[in-house]
Amino acid sequence: MQRPIRIVVPFKLNNAKSRLAPALTPEGRRLLAFAMLRDVLDAVSGFGRLTVLSRPGLDAAKVGCDVEILESELDLNDALNSFIAGEASLGWPSDILIVMSDLALLTQSDVAGILSCPGDVVLCPGRGGGTNMILIRNPRFRTCYRGLSFPRHQEYARQSGLAASVFESFRAGSDIDRPEDMAEVLLHGRGRAKKTLESLGFILPQSGQAGCVRT
Amino acid sequence: MQRPIRIVVPFKLNNAKSRLAPALTPEGRRLLAFAMLRDVLDAVSGFGRLTVLSRPGLDAAKVGCDVEILESELDLNDALNSFIAGEASLGWPSDILIVMSDLALLTQSDVAGILSCPGDVVLCPGRGGGTNMILIRNPRFRTCYRGLSFPRHQEYARQSGLAASVFESFRAGSDIDRPEDMAEVLLHGRGRAKKTLESLGFILPQSGQAGCVRT
Repeated sequence: MQRPIRIVVPFKLNNAKSRLAPALTPEGRRLLAFAMLRDVLDAVSGFGRLTVLSRPGLDAAKVGCDVEILESELDLNDALNSFIAGEASLGWPSDILIVMSDLALLTQSDVAGILSCPGDVVLCPGRGGGTNMILIRNPRFRTCYRGLSFPRHQEYARQSGLAASVFESFRAGSDIDRPEDMAEVLLHGRGRAKKTLESLGFILPQSGQAGCVRT
Repeated sequence: MQRPIRIVVPFKLNNAKSRLAPALTPEGRRLLAFAMLRDVLDAVSGFGRLTVLSRPGLDAAKVGCDVEILESELDLNDALNSFIAGEASLGWPSDILIVMSDLALLTQSDVAGILSCPGDVVLCPGRGGGTNMILIRNPRFRTCYRGLSFPRHQEYARQSGLAASVFESFRAGSDIDRPEDMAEVLLHGRGRAKKTLESLGFILPQSGQAGCVRT
């Protein structure tokens, strides 16, 4: 039987999506970050209890009423690992699925896909060596988000004697970090993030060039 | 019943992978291009008759003995569309699967995946708006490779009254074009392309930075 799932979506409240600064104003980045968060929450909704992990100050009304907000002053890994340790101390009432908040193309089938994979931990790679989702079924796992986190997470599982598997997905692998990633949202997005970029005046170029342009 | 499949892999013989020039010498690019081609041919092998499409001068010994080489002086779209038209004139003896030669992470399950999709044409997107594989089941389809080819191919199918579907895959979506893509090969590659980069001295950085570095 499927165990209950606790879904944790870390959200960077301040200066989110700073690598998009060459293409978007701070306000544009903030709008896109919230739009992507809500698209991600739509995709994971229905699979388990939802928690957004954020520094203090996140306005719950901007996230949606069915979502718990867990505030933490800690950095990403410390906040996540403190949460994991807390769940372990409670007897591990549910498995934990960590989902990055900038997966603007994520669909329910990606979430069902990672949940169907075997292993004590299931890693979903992002382009460039990141880890876009992690399903944790064993309380001994800890996150190591920094730089090339995917091989770090694989190595952590190996050294901890945990069975790790990999879930690969075009959509789940597409995190939106850099200006050139914005074209992915316009091309393949189906939700608020795409509408937000369109409302900010971004379109795909007609000339056959890659990337996206502002009208 | 599954119809026979003719698999066409276009290969750029001269100045291949020019966008990797900041990271690789011309000889390194040539070695990587051939290694990726052979990885792709391994992945598609067994699914149908294999043809590499190239400008004249490709050394068959570098490609493998079970592969036909079709030489053409035409540019990519004209060469492919001339081939499609030729098959149409023969009564369409087999469906056509076009596979880009730089899909260093491609596996047999990606090939099986696209073949299992419905539609007159099945498009497999690459990161950045490209089209990394196309399965053509209707002789009226034509390729339009240039810039953002994925929406062009969707639009071509729509205007031609053809049913198009989309096959999405992390591995099939990862074409190796830019220096930062080389990290994907080191992280997720399983074949000759990974070995080639390693033999050229590339490793993943230990510092947690993204990308890959040369020792």
